[in-house]
Order: sequence, then C-alpha cells, then structure tokens
Amino acid sequence: MNRREFNLGLLQASAICALQPMHLAVAAPLHVNGARLNQHIAALAEFGKNPQGGVSRVAYSEADARGREYVMGLMRAAKLEVSIDAAGNLIGRRAAANNDDSLRPILFGSHIDSVPEGGNFDGDVGSLGAIEVAQTLAEQNVMLRHPIEVIIFQNEEGGLIGSEAVVGALTERELDLVNKSGKTVREGIKFIGGDVTKLANVKREKGSIAAYLELHIEQGGTLEAEHIDIGVVEGIVGINWWDVTIEGFANHAGTTAMNNRQDALLAAAKFIEAVNRVVTSVPGRQVGTVGRIQALPGAPNVIPGKVVCSLELRDLDAAKIQLLYQKIRAEADQIAQASKVKFDFKELNANIPAPTDPRIRAMIDQSAKELGLSTRQMPSGAGHDAQDMARIGPVGMIFIPSIGGISHSPKEFSRPRDIENGVNVLLQTLLKVDQTVF
Amino acid sequence: MNRREFNLGLLQASAICALQPMHLAVAAPLHVNGARLNQHIAALAEFGKNPQGGVSRVAYSEADARGREYVMGLMRAAKLEVSIDAAGNLIGRRAAANNDDSLRPILFGSHIDSVPEGGNFDGDVGSLGAIEVAQTLAEQNVMLRHPIEVIIFQNEEGGLIGSEAVVGALTERELDLVNKSGKTVREGIKFIGGDVTKLANVKREKGSIAAYLELHIEQGGTLEAEHIDIGVVEGIVGINWWDVTIEGFANHAGTTAMNNRQDALLAAAKFIEAVNRVVTSVPGRQVGTVGRIQALPGAPNVIPGKVVCSLELRDLDAAKIQLLYQKIRAEADQIAQASKVKFDFKELNANIPAPTDPRIRAMIDQSAKELGLSTRQMPSGAGHDAQDMARIGPVGMIFIPSIGGISHSPKEFSRPRDIENGVNVLLQTLLKVDQTVF
Repeated sequence: MNRREFNLGLLQASAICALQPMHLAVAAPLHVNGARLNQHIAALAEFGKNPQGGVSRVAYSEADARGREYVMGLMRAAKLEVSIDAAGNLIGRRAAANNDDSLRPILFGSHIDSVPEGGNFDGDVGSLGAIEVAQTLAEQNVMLRHPIEVIIFQNEEGGLIGSEAVVGALTERELDLVNKSGKTVREGIKFIGGDVTKLANVKREKGSIAAYLELHIEQGGTLEAEHIDIGVVEGIVGINWWDVTIEGFANHAGTTAMNNRQDALLAAAKFIEAVNRVVTSVPGRQVGTVGRIQALPGAPNVIPGKVVCSLELRDLDAAKIQLLYQKIRAEADQIAQASKVKFDFKELNANIPAPTDPRIRAMIDQSAKELGLSTRQMPSGAGHDAQDMARIGPVGMIFIPSIGGISHSPKEFSRPRDIENGVNVLLQTLLKVDQTVF
Repeated sequence: MNRREFNLGLLQASAICALQPMHLAVAAPLHVNGARLNQHIAALAEFGKNPQGGVSRVAYSEADARGREYVMGLMRAAKLEVSIDAAGNLIGRRAAANNDDSLRPILFGSHIDSVPEGGNFDGDVGSLGAIEVAQTLAEQNVMLRHPIEVIIFQNEEGGLIGSEAVVGALTERELDLVNKSGKTVREGIKFIGGDVTKLANVKREKGSIAAYLELHIEQGGTLEAEHIDIGVVEGIVGINWWDVTIEGFANHAGTTAMNNRQDALLAAAKFIEAVNRVVTSVPGRQVGTVGRIQALPGAPNVIPGKVVCSLELRDLDAAKIQLLYQKIRAEADQIAQASKVKFDFKELNANIPAPTDPRIRAMIDQSAKELGLSTRQMPSGAGHDAQDMARIGPVGMIFIPSIGGISHSPKEFSRPRDIENGVNVLLQTLLKVDQTVF
C-alpha cells in the first residue's frame, strides 16, 4: 500500500476491486462486512440473554466473563494481538506499517458490559464494530501509518471504570463499589484477569495516544425522528447532580385548613414544574430531570412535612448548567417564600463536559457524506468512555439511530443497516485520522 | 335533688354554694375540678411515655393495658359501675335517678389509645374529661333522669374499632388487621379482656341510646388562630381516598430531549398543583391532600415512567367531594393529553359524612356561652368514634383548641384552662341533654 491510496480516506482495496467493474474501481471505498458484524452482535447477545428479551451482562458476572472470551476470539480472528491490561480492559493491537513505532497509537472501541436487563446495542455495536473494522483492514491487507488498538473497556455501566483506570482517575472509593454482580470493582478486576496492584501500569499519559474513536448508539430519539443516518457528537455533556430537600411541616390532612399548610410535596410539585420551565426556557439541547422523589411521612392522611428529590442538569456547556441552576435556585426561593417551606440544595457530583475534537468531527462528517449518509451535529447526553479519553487525547464519537430513543431496556434496538453504516463511517474516519498527525 | 334545679342546665350545688356569697348562689353553675382533671391527664401520660416526649400507647400494647387499668380505677373513684364489653371497650355506668330504667342511656367518652409517637391530648382529654364529669356529678350528688355511660372506645386510632363493634360494623377483615402492637385486632381484643366470640352482644341497635357526646381536641389550628374557646362540631367529614397511577415512559435522562419525554413525575407535579387549585377554588372548609408519592424507577438519571400517588378529599358534604373529584378528573384529563401520559384513579375507601344533631349543637353553643366562652361552628376534619355512634343515635361533639394545630405528635398540646372549659361545656351539655327526650 502506498500513501496515495489513502487520499480522502478512499481505499482502493485490490481484493474487492478485482470483483468490481473497472469504472468503479478507482473510487470504491473500503466497506466492512455488515452481515458478519450483525451475526457477531447476535452471537454476543447469547451471553447473559434474558428469557424475556435483552441481556443482563453486568460487569464481573459470569456472563460478562464468557462474553469477553467470545470477544477475544473475534479479536484474534481479526489478527489483533490480544492482551488484558491490569484494569481488565481488553486490548487488541495491530502494529503500524513496517512495524513503525514512531507514531502514537490510534485507539477505538467501546464496552460490552450491560446494565441489568439491558439491551444488545449499547456498547456492543461500538465494540464489535471496532473489531469488524480491524478484521476488514486485515482481510484487505490495509496497513496504517499508526499502530491501532481496539479497546474494550470493562465496566462502563458501573461508572466508566475501565477508562478511568486508563486515564489514571480510578479512585480507592470506586474500587470498593459493589455492583449487581455482587463483587466489588477490586474483586471484579481480579475476576476478569486484571491486577489491581499494577493499575499504575495501565495509566496513559496525556498526549500518549494519537486519538480515540468510539461508535455508539444514540440512546435518544433525535436521529430516528429526523431520519438522519449519523450523529457527529460534539461532546459528552457535563452532568451535575443535587439532592434537594424541602422542609415543610407534617400535619393532619383532615384538620389542617388549606390556608394553614406547609405542604412540602405541593412545594416540590411547583419545583418540578419550575425545573422543566427553566430548562426549556432557553434554546439548546440542555436537559433537566427530577427522577427520584420521597415524601415523608408518606401517608395519604398526613400533609407531607419533608420531601427529598434529585435534580440533574446536563449540557455541553458547564457555564450554561450553572446559569440554569441559578435560575432554578431563584424559582425555589420564590416557592419557599410563597409556600412557607425551606429548600436545601446539596451538590452530589459534577462531571465536566468533554468536547470532542473539531478536526475529528469534520472527518466523521466528511466520511459519512462520502458514503452518501446524512449527518447532524449533536451532544451526547449520556456518559461514555470517550469522556475519560478526552483527558489524554483528541476524541471523536459517531452515533447511529436508536429506534424510539429507547436504551437500557430489552427494547433497545438499532437497525442492521444503521449499524453497518456506523461501522463504515468508523472505518473511514480511522483512515482519515491515520493520515493526520495531531 | 329535684327537677327545678336542673333548669337551663344550671345547677345549684349545695356543697359549692355553701362557700359562695349569697348573691351568686342561685345561678352558680356546676363546675368540674380542673386541677384534678389535668393531674389525671398527666398521670395517664406516664403509660407509654416516650423519652423524647409524648406517648406511644398503641392499642393492645402493654402501655395500653396499663393505661386502661388506670382509667378503670378513675371510673371506680367516680362511682361508676365498670365493665369491659366483648369488644374490649371500657364502660362506666351510672344509673338514673331512682334507678329509673324508662329512659335510654346517654353515652359520652372518647379513647385513650394513641398513634405511635403521639401526644397526650388526642382522646385523653375526652376520656378523662368524661370521667371527671361523672365524678363531679357523684360528688355533688347530682342525679340525672337518664342512665349515663362513660365509654372509652378501644383502638380508635386503628380505625374506630371499638365504636365499629358497638354499631355492628366491625368486619372480619378488620379483625385480622395487625397494628403496631404486633397483634391482630382479634388477638388484641382478647388481650384487653374482650371476647370476639361474643361481639354480637356488643352491638347496640339504632335508637337504643338517648345520645352520644364527645369532647376532643380540635387537631387543627382554627380555634387557636381565631382565639375561640369552643368548637361546636357540625359533623365529621366524609373521607374519600384514591390511588392515582400516572403512566408515562421511562427513558434516559441524558439522551431524551425535553420535547420528547413522557415524564410521569412532571405530570404528577401538575396534578398535585391542580388538586390544590381545585380544592381551594370554591368557598368552604373542604380539604384535599396528596400525601404519598412514588416515582418509578426512581433514579436521578432516569425519566420517571410511572408515578403512584394518593388523593384524599374530605368535606361535610358528600356531593361537594364528588364535585371536586370530577373537577380534578377533568384537570387530570388535560394534563394527560398535554404530557402524553395516562391517569388511572382507583377508589380505595369512602367514609360518608356524619352530621351531628342540630339540637345538641345548640345545647353545646348555649352551654359554652353561659360559661362565658366564645364558640364557632366547624366540621371535624378528623375521624372520631362519634361518626360511628351517629349511625345509632343523635351525637354532639365539642372541640377545644390545639396549640399550633399540631396533633399525632409529641408536640400536641392543649392548655389546661381550655381543657377545663371543654369539660365544663361537656357537663353542661350533658345536663341539657338529660332534660330532653330525643
């Protein structure tokens, strides 16, 4: 292979071109094997399959371990050199052309662990898609300038554990978390072949990778609703969580006149409406959610004296989150005064937004258009390993449609054609990134 | 004692009058011993006393049994003939003048069981007040035309169990209820000296009593706020309960755009506000409460797909409750349409309103005014044994102020002076009722 053939990311692959009419041969882009890829997704779905549909392949479970073995087999078939790092991440490496070690590796991948009673597309598409890209490159004897590493991060659903280890952000507290497998992260890492005593070896320094690419399902309904093939992810949103406590006064629901109440749940209702109103009052794709609520004492015949609820705000722009939060606080102050209750906000957690690299965004967009696919720029409202990897190098994320926007559910579904499109975009983007030195 | 002395319910009690200046002697009304009464209330408070204040004298508990023994002692000291009926109610009977059996008995009393972590006034004031009235009559050798029965109903807080038995409304299902004592009602009745196999003997037929009177704390804040001494209860409100289920669609809180949500908790918030708006939109003392709420799945990062909450409406007028309910249903229909959710209402329970007897109301009002006390007519928002007794005869209820409107709490409090006032009104009302044949 020579350099000219990589131009514009279009590959003339001799094995394919031999079967093509001559007039197409020059511009025929390299394509992955969509049928094989979707077969692999169906096969992986057997590990942790639930009778009622979907999968429970929680990290560190027996199903997770068996799924990882299956994936390592696919990696080997794709001529990748397989290893398990000390954090338990699966890595399939392929050397650069001529074993040239001068360029830093390009990483791409996702995860294969699921939430309990999850679906077969969140993580799986990006993981098996990455291996399919590697297999296509191997089959077509396409050598790249950079070494590549397909990386399957462990325990994404439990808090991006594998990628946190890679960027050196995994804490002792997280190592002691217990997930639905019944194991702590510490025990789980040992169970899947890692070694917590050697986590320092896993850490990659900032600037040590050329780029990280991840293909994923949208997990929202925008692409499907707008009939768009490919989402070009602008970044992974920041997430801020608060516990909101509303103190009123519990009293007898029969004997306390309506104008003499300090009803914490009525105040909470006004608050929930205010959150919705504030979040939708400005343009943009920010979201705000109250997902958890508890009213105390919680009896039909007692006016609630206390409510504890959650508040979550997400946006690509941390400043916008703060602006929305301040507006919500101002509304809460007004409700407190009008309803004779007290509000208390306790910040629990904040993930800062992780923008993707604009150059890689452009490459994804161009790759999709060259394949005849429509695109739109969009944030990722969900967290992904890519947000950790953005701390150490430029990242790019590719989204494909989720039917009905459903995710973390047995009903999660992405069409085989959309999956194939996404993996072809991943392949073409990888080829473009390979032509660049960031 | 002769009949003339009962005129207008004003008693010339020779033992007292001997100590009074002559010009007051003719009109001096009979008074209870307020100091003794308040001592009795303090003494009863020892049974089930909580270290942090208040009392836990749940029906069928050891504290309840000991409290009942104390009360039976007080009854005997008041020259009442004490018995425990088959339902476990305590009855202290006093014969009519000349052992005349021609008139039906006048019953008056309340209950001494408490809610867990309750106060020392709900039930206790009316119970010990009734015994104080009997003791005053005995001390002053005041004989009445009617037999009287001081009745201390068992397990009022657990669903008016004792009075349900008296009116023949106690069900097998209720007998199997377990309360905080750990006993079923069936076991509890045996524990306190009743006999469930003889419950039929307890039942009193409609028309078999002359009247039932009950003194109680308001458990609301109206009397205290308006500086009124005595509440003349117009009736015990009807109570309707519903379970309200709101079905939306659970989805990822990060990836689901604001305009693409079916957020059951946001709809519930609008519903809670609507309940408050509807209930306060018409004049009157009706109340409406959402006291219990559960959002599912209940995670900060998941849009709630389902909410189950309670709805309770209370009013003296059953038709008004239905009118309010229909308005709330109409609002729910609008919210359902606007928020793309479904509402389902399941009626759980309905207590029909129990009006008090207008003639007894007038006697309470007159008695209070003769004692120089201010009055107001008001509904009882709480349930009381009087609502059961209203099924078999005319009832009257007297309220005294609850400080801060607080009840079912260690902070429950009524002033000694207000208690004494209430018991004096009870005494004078009894004397007026005794002059009447309903």
